[in-house]
Amino acid sequence: METIIVGKQAQGKYRKNWKVCIGTGRLGLALQKEYQDHLRLLQEQIGFSYIRGHGLLHDDVGIYREFETADGHAKPFYNFTYIDRIFDSYLELGIRPFVEIGFMPKLLASGEQTIFYWKGNVTPPKDYSKWKDLVQAIVTHFIARYGEEEVLRWPFEIWNEPNLINFWQDADQAEYFKLYLVTAQAIKEVHPSIQVGGPAICGGSDHWITDFLLFCKNESAPVDFVTRHAYTSAKPHKTTPELVYQELNNNTSMLEEFKQVREMIQASPFPDLPFHITEYNTSYSPINPIHDTTLNAAYLARTLSEASDYVDSLSYWTFSDVFEELDVPKAQFHGGFGLIALNGILKPTFHLFRFFNSLGEELLYRDENIIVTRKPDGSIALVIWNLVIEKGDDFNKEVTITLPLEFRDVFIKRDTIDEIHANPWRVWKELGRPRFPSQQQIQMLRQVAEPHVRTLRKTTENETLSLTLTLSKNEVSLIEFIPVYEEAQPYIDLDDSQMTSYS
Amino acid sequence: METIIVGKQAQGKYRKNWKVCIGTGRLGLALQKEYQDHLRLLQEQIGFSYIRGHGLLHDDVGIYREFETADGHAKPFYNFTYIDRIFDSYLELGIRPFVEIGFMPKLLASGEQTIFYWKGNVTPPKDYSKWKDLVQAIVTHFIARYGEEEVLRWPFEIWNEPNLINFWQDADQAEYFKLYLVTAQAIKEVHPSIQVGGPAICGGSDHWITDFLLFCKNESAPVDFVTRHAYTSAKPHKTTPELVYQELNNNTSMLEEFKQVREMIQASPFPDLPFHITEYNTSYSPINPIHDTTLNAAYLARTLSEASDYVDSLSYWTFSDVFEELDVPKAQFHGGFGLIALNGILKPTFHLFRFFNSLGEELLYRDENIIVTRKPDGSIALVIWNLVIEKGDDFNKEVTITLPLEFRDVFIKRDTIDEIHANPWRVWKELGRPRFPSQQQIQMLRQVAEPHVRTLRKTTENETLSLTLTLSKNEVSLIEFIPVYEEAQPYIDLDDSQMTSYS
Amino acid sequence: METIIVGKQAQGKYRKNWKVCIGTGRLGLALQKEYQDHLRLLQEQIGFSYIRGHGLLHDDVGIYREFETADGHAKPFYNFTYIDRIFDSYLELGIRPFVEIGFMPKLLASGEQTIFYWKGNVTPPKDYSKWKDLVQAIVTHFIARYGEEEVLRWPFEIWNEPNLINFWQDADQAEYFKLYLVTAQAIKEVHPSIQVGGPAICGGSDHWITDFLLFCKNESAPVDFVTRHAYTSAKPHKTTPELVYQELNNNTSMLEEFKQVREMIQASPFPDLPFHITEYNTSYSPINPIHDTTLNAAYLARTLSEASDYVDSLSYWTFSDVFEELDVPKAQFHGGFGLIALNGILKPTFHLFRFFNSLGEELLYRDENIIVTRKPDGSIALVIWNLVIEKGDDFNKEVTITLPLEFRDVFIKRDTIDEIHANPWRVWKELGRPRFPSQQQIQMLRQVAEPHVRTLRKTTENETLSLTLTLSKNEVSLIEFIPVYEEAQPYIDLDDSQMTSYS
Amino acid sequence: METIIVGKQAQGKYRKNWKVCIGTGRLGLALQKEYQDHLRLLQEQIGFSYIRGHGLLHDDVGIYREFETADGHAKPFYNFTYIDRIFDSYLELGIRPFVEIGFMPKLLASGEQTIFYWKGNVTPPKDYSKWKDLVQAIVTHFIARYGEEEVLRWPFEIWNEPNLINFWQDADQAEYFKLYLVTAQAIKEVHPSIQVGGPAICGGSDHWITDFLLFCKNESAPVDFVTRHAYTSAKPHKTTPELVYQELNNNTSMLEEFKQVREMIQASPFPDLPFHITEYNTSYSPINPIHDTTLNAAYLARTLSEASDYVDSLSYWTFSDVFEELDVPKAQFHGGFGLIALNGILKPTFHLFRFFNSLGEELLYRDENIIVTRKPDGSIALVIWNLVIEKGDDFNKEVTITLPLEFRDVFIKRDTIDEIHANPWRVWKELGRPRFPSQQQIQMLRQVAEPHVRTLRKTTENETLSLTLTLSKNEVSLIEFIPVYEEAQPYIDLDDSQMTSYS
Repeated sequence: METIIVGKQAQGKYRKNWKVCIGTGRLGLALQKEYQDHLRLLQEQIGFSYIRGHGLLHDDVGIYREFETADGHAKPFYNFTYIDRIFDSYLELGIRPFVEIGFMPKLLASGEQTIFYWKGNVTPPKDYSKWKDLVQAIVTHFIARYGEEEVLRWPFEIWNEPNLINFWQDADQAEYFKLYLVTAQAIKEVHPSIQVGGPAICGGSDHWITDFLLFCKNESAPVDFVTRHAYTSAKPHKTTPELVYQELNNNTSMLEEFKQVREMIQASPFPDLPFHITEYNTSYSPINPIHDTTLNAAYLARTLSEASDYVDSLSYWTFSDVFEELDVPKAQFHGGFGLIALNGILKPTFHLFRFFNSLGEELLYRDENIIVTRKPDGSIALVIWNLVIEKGDDFNKEVTITLPLEFRDVFIKRDTIDEIHANPWRVWKELGRPRFPSQQQIQMLRQVAEPHVRTLRKTTENETLSLTLTLSKNEVSLIEFIPVYEEAQPYIDLDDSQMTSYS
Repeated sequence: METIIVGKQAQGKYRKNWKVCIGTGRLGLALQKEYQDHLRLLQEQIGFSYIRGHGLLHDDVGIYREFETADGHAKPFYNFTYIDRIFDSYLELGIRPFVEIGFMPKLLASGEQTIFYWKGNVTPPKDYSKWKDLVQAIVTHFIARYGEEEVLRWPFEIWNEPNLINFWQDADQAEYFKLYLVTAQAIKEVHPSIQVGGPAICGGSDHWITDFLLFCKNESAPVDFVTRHAYTSAKPHKTTPELVYQELNNNTSMLEEFKQVREMIQASPFPDLPFHITEYNTSYSPINPIHDTTLNAAYLARTLSEASDYVDSLSYWTFSDVFEELDVPKAQFHGGFGLIALNGILKPTFHLFRFFNSLGEELLYRDENIIVTRKPDGSIALVIWNLVIEKGDDFNKEVTITLPLEFRDVFIKRDTIDEIHANPWRVWKELGRPRFPSQQQIQMLRQVAEPHVRTLRKTTENETLSLTLTLSKNEVSLIEFIPVYEEAQPYIDLDDSQMTSYS
Repeated sequence: METIIVGKQAQGKYRKNWKVCIGTGRLGLALQKEYQDHLRLLQEQIGFSYIRGHGLLHDDVGIYREFETADGHAKPFYNFTYIDRIFDSYLELGIRPFVEIGFMPKLLASGEQTIFYWKGNVTPPKDYSKWKDLVQAIVTHFIARYGEEEVLRWPFEIWNEPNLINFWQDADQAEYFKLYLVTAQAIKEVHPSIQVGGPAICGGSDHWITDFLLFCKNESAPVDFVTRHAYTSAKPHKTTPELVYQELNNNTSMLEEFKQVREMIQASPFPDLPFHITEYNTSYSPINPIHDTTLNAAYLARTLSEASDYVDSLSYWTFSDVFEELDVPKAQFHGGFGLIALNGILKPTFHLFRFFNSLGEELLYRDENIIVTRKPDGSIALVIWNLVIEKGDDFNKEVTITLPLEFRDVFIKRDTIDEIHANPWRVWKELGRPRFPSQQQIQMLRQVAEPHVRTLRKTTENETLSLTLTLSKNEVSLIEFIPVYEEAQPYIDLDDSQMTSYS
Repeated sequence: METIIVGKQAQGKYRKNWKVCIGTGRLGLALQKEYQDHLRLLQEQIGFSYIRGHGLLHDDVGIYREFETADGHAKPFYNFTYIDRIFDSYLELGIRPFVEIGFMPKLLASGEQTIFYWKGNVTPPKDYSKWKDLVQAIVTHFIARYGEEEVLRWPFEIWNEPNLINFWQDADQAEYFKLYLVTAQAIKEVHPSIQVGGPAICGGSDHWITDFLLFCKNESAPVDFVTRHAYTSAKPHKTTPELVYQELNNNTSMLEEFKQVREMIQASPFPDLPFHITEYNTSYSPINPIHDTTLNAAYLARTLSEASDYVDSLSYWTFSDVFEELDVPKAQFHGGFGLIALNGILKPTFHLFRFFNSLGEELLYRDENIIVTRKPDGSIALVIWNLVIEKGDDFNKEVTITLPLEFRDVFIKRDTIDEIHANPWRVWKELGRPRFPSQQQIQMLRQVAEPHVRTLRKTTENETLSLTLTLSKNEVSLIEFIPVYEEAQPYIDLDDSQMTSYS
């Protein structure tokens, strides 16, 4: 049995950089009602500051169009009907765009290469002058509609994963740097204080970071922040038409990558630039069932606990299964990235975020399986987890925790997710994996998606309390220790033992 | 260990007469927002047909007023501002008034005797002619506003518990019969098809039933239904300024009373009259903590299971703790009658109603601790309970149930309330009995007020399934057995064992 | 000045067949939040029974997919994720699908010809056997999800405008009849009572009606109803990249067409078949500004007044400007079909429907410019209009109407739309035609989109009332005559002349 | 015809002190749903900062209670169940309490004198020590529940109109000063920074102001602000059981009173104290029909225009007809104080507040009939009115206004209320004064309660625009002049004259 003794002295501050930004399916999906319902739920229960997704310039949002003039020329036309509706809805829900400039409108594309079911074009502009006009028209429109003060708070990131041939034709670094320079300068011409950054690479090619910052230095390209992605799955070892299976890397690998890239930035000509992880998750596949599991939550707990030490933000990819990279989702659970499954059903990782959101700012203790914090009122909130990679059922673990509590009576509340509780994916399998569940099944799945809650009242001794917990497989628990101010006293003659059945 | 074997053959029909009507605090409280919030919650989750409460004619609803004319006469004035708002809101929520005619407007009262914190006057009219005018004005107004078709569906009950001196001056039977006759005739003059009834007595004076029906026969008084109340608590054995403690009678006593009175009606000159229990609960005191307990639910389970055999409706007193008979409620939990506590917190008995509401119409099996029903789709829904009157913690009980299920795979869902789960009263005590809980405490109490849900998938053998359950103290569980139509097959190459952690 | 004298005697019944069905942009758009907001508004204020649109089988709804099996075969897969969400939302809003079977999923198409911005494939199936499987899978799923009783109320119409080469490859009649036969039989095999019909032609080829019914007779093809479309615009006389201008035919032309086709049906082997106009409007172009005008309302008034004499339903094309046939809408007003413009702004024709919805069932009088009806309470509701095709401002018209009113005091309410009132298109032009209006501009446009309301109280003489009205250009007014039951009398000593400023 | 020439130069700043606070019926009414609905409407459309009403300590809110202890002593008990619900709801709607300490709980009262239908006790405490305990318990509870930072923003005003014998037994000044001293000191003991003030007198006894401040000086009583009320009606010249008729004073009288009292404060020992008008209206009677009229709005226009020059806040009495001082309201319109009539119907004075809320901060011009302001974007907003005290219909007035506008094209929007428009009281009389209107009548009244809106587009000349207006009797209009940025140009070949009917 493990024993943890938590001291009274704060060990620093717990920062929630994981709350700065969240990922989304392509922006065009933000027109959908179910998307908006999920986003509202997310904001009401957790509350992120920014949202980032692909497809701002994709043809379904439809910004770039051309008209033919009487003399047969193509005249650019910028259609803001849909993007206004989308950004209006974001701001109404208290979340700002973390703008990603891409992909290429068909009419501006130099090639035909596309990515995803929805065919995002990933080729360079065929005319950089029209590209510049487009970028400036957009930024100018944003300022006109939302005001300078607002837009100055939006980061503008140029393109997505240009180091991959799927996302940028030939993964051509020189062409990306050209695109970056033109775009960043175009934006700064509209307003010099708008923040621009890149290179938005995925892991595995970190030399791009160094190259990029050197390029910015040499070419005097504006750069206000550095971005990168992070996923922790190996290549698929089995692929089926509907699902993909992958092994997980060790859950410290992501933190190590964060640290290394931070050091690369510090060693660059721009050592103080903010560093944003604009995508992360376990698997990069939208059909890997791990995303629906409790394992996914237990695995990422350590990331939420420690990542803020290295990065200024990290953006979980993505908040909702309203998502279409490979196709229209084919079943209630299908391995999608979302914190929220179709029909508004919360996944375990959603609760992981809720739990970490309940932590205080004063960090009292932290190791690889627990984080303990204190709030201004003296109450303590901790998150503890029992990550189990192995198969099987018997991985219970006992832990005894001793906590400093400066009050006599304490109310203890434990919210738990594990393989049994808050696991709608499990219940869905019991139901026979209904692809298109009935309203009755949806109600059941919503009901079982809530954490198991246990409460208890204890008395501290010498301003400390010891608690022994049994953690089940992949359990993540939020435990709160709240002072009790007993109000039985004002009752005259209160005596529960006078009741039938009770004492 | 108990063993129950349920056969395939239906034993009759399960009727939900407990769903016909529900009690409410005085009508004036229906103006309140919290009242309306609770009623909406009730209707969305259960859905009653009628609502009955005191105070239609009380001065806070303010219907009866008088103006002084120029020559100094008092001219009656009927003010429908508030009652229209109240009945409009009922109908909007899909619930109809079960109208109780009473108490006496101050300006029409012959005496000063009042009841309750809100001072309902319980004396006869000082002028029966003005009383008749008032009654007719009201009924006429209802028909004008809501239409004849609607109002013909509203029962009109004359007065409340006239056999008690607290509710009717001197419990004067002759005077009550006079009031009844005048009122019933007044109503029938407005429309002969409106249903009228009485005598709305509490238990303990059942000869009033016989007397009343004889009176109706002899005086040709209109009578369309018979009403009575039922509570199953002994006199208080301890009374404090805030709480009252009482012993409970056996939980069959209520059913026996229903049966006896039904027989009295059958032996009367009106043997076929409908028989409505217009109030029932364990305790008749609005400050008995039993109403907040799981015991209350386990105790009443049998009533909901069997009462429809004897009575045409039974109206739980009351749906909400928005209630003021003794005073403004003084604490979050205070022993109020409500299914819903202040701040929208569900009590165990609320779930009891939800559970019985989920039963099917085909009755397969019933005894004192269980009811088993089947639905048209072949699924089975049962409610089982473990009523424990004794004090202490060790009253677990094992039961094995064998069920007929005409399908191979079955999904089993068990919703449980007991001393541990869905017991916000317990958690509230752990929190130190906060009288006026903070928003954070309210959120916690709402969260712990939900039933514990467990799910399971099993395979039937020879179209039967056996299940062994352990029931905890005062547990009430709804268990549903739903056919599974496995959809794993359409997946090509599905193999969960390829996942990390799962097999 | 025109004079109209309305008699007491009813001239028949006014039926609202225009309320049976309404058109919608392609079904995939029903996923959008703005679409759902508009549909809710429509249903709350008017309340249609059915909704019909293209694209059930289009790839964005995504029903038809194929998987590759291990041995390399393509295995059909039917994805109901989106169509369930769409039909669930319709039924929740109290509107049923009028199902149109089309267009062709890419994977089943025999050719590459498409229509619209969203590229609906209009070629026959490359494999009629897979087509039949698809149709049956869909219908079977609908019955499983929504129940037989519900689905038996949904008409199934086969394809859209097969008489046009744009909508059906080569407008090949023989191929259409083949498609019809296969599809109708496939549906009837699932359930023989489901209603099927066609040929959904646009105007101008009415011999298709005769051919179609003859074909059904000869081939014993199931047929439960006949469908056709109707638009009343000439070919465009001016076309620009964003707008199209057309002349209007006489507004009786549509009624005449209805009559003729009805006669053709009556002369066919199926003389009693229901006849549904599954699309109609003035212009068939989604960028003709007439749809935004008051003229559009004044022009269609007669259609709403008289069409029910000839057709069993007529479905206005469409309820909302959330629509994408030519592209993403490029401006707040852009000549779209919708009753409701972007941002929830009501167009004049929306109010036309509201006005006709307020009429009673008893028809007292009707001519080309007015319809007068009576309701069960004796009140009279009329709609009157002043259609002006000419340009210019001076087309006021005076009318005197004499009405039978069987009560003394009458409250008259006149709701008016005309060139000045309820004309947000006009105000939008004054605002400078903002393509992407600000929230402030949207608020203004909503405010000015409401009808002008005037009220008046009059006294009848000899149970009649004469009223002289001045109608402005393209005015449409709803005028209601409601009995007044004066309640001043119960006030003692009421005397408004005692007030400052009033008498 | 009047001519007004407005210059470019700002004349100062227009402050909206009328928006700081609004009056309400007694706090107990805030439990009602209709009250909350009206308050939400008010806050969404206008948005006040504070709300003030009577009855915090009245027995229906129920804070002060006593229990009998075992030894027969009365032990105070403070019940915050209702006041928490009330203040929670205020803060949720973004409005803070302007706390009025009063009236006397029955158990603490030294006498039996009461005021109003709801019997507020107006006698001094029988035990000042228990009174002090009560006050401190309340303030302590507020801080515990809402936090110090929040409660420090709430003013605490001691009692209401102690200079009237109806509101304070014998209008005993010495006793009031005693109450004030004890109460103010009690509050400051809880927290020295909480603001306290008085004497909350009605007009007519302004020497109380001087006396009060002198008393504070002499006795070192804490005082942070001075309060007074203002009504501008003469004594009733006709009183009926349901309505009261009064003459109005000149509408400058209120401003003069404000000025005089401000000067009295400046001459006092506390010359810099804030001065709050904690109640004002035309009539002080809750059954004077003037409150329902357009006259009321036209009369108060000047007050909203100029009062901020003299007072730090002025609190219109009251926001809603959910009010019970004389009795339950007896009719839809009954002369109540509210900006919002029963059933959520907006009165003309509601729009007056909306109009003044739309003004800018830069004051360009002001006289007794108009106020002209400019906003940061250069647009101009003015409110103009035509107050007519005389009876009759012919009081139209022509005005020509010349305005400085630094842009070429201007969109002009005029929102008008007058005797014809936004006058639901007039329509209600036409409807026969239905006391308890049907849902249909309520819909009509809501519809006619909206202002008449006219729009226009004009071109400025030499950066000025002249506009000639005809103002009808008691018209109040908001007129906004907004720059137009024409977007017709991007349309290629736009030509409205190609349309049928339009040019």
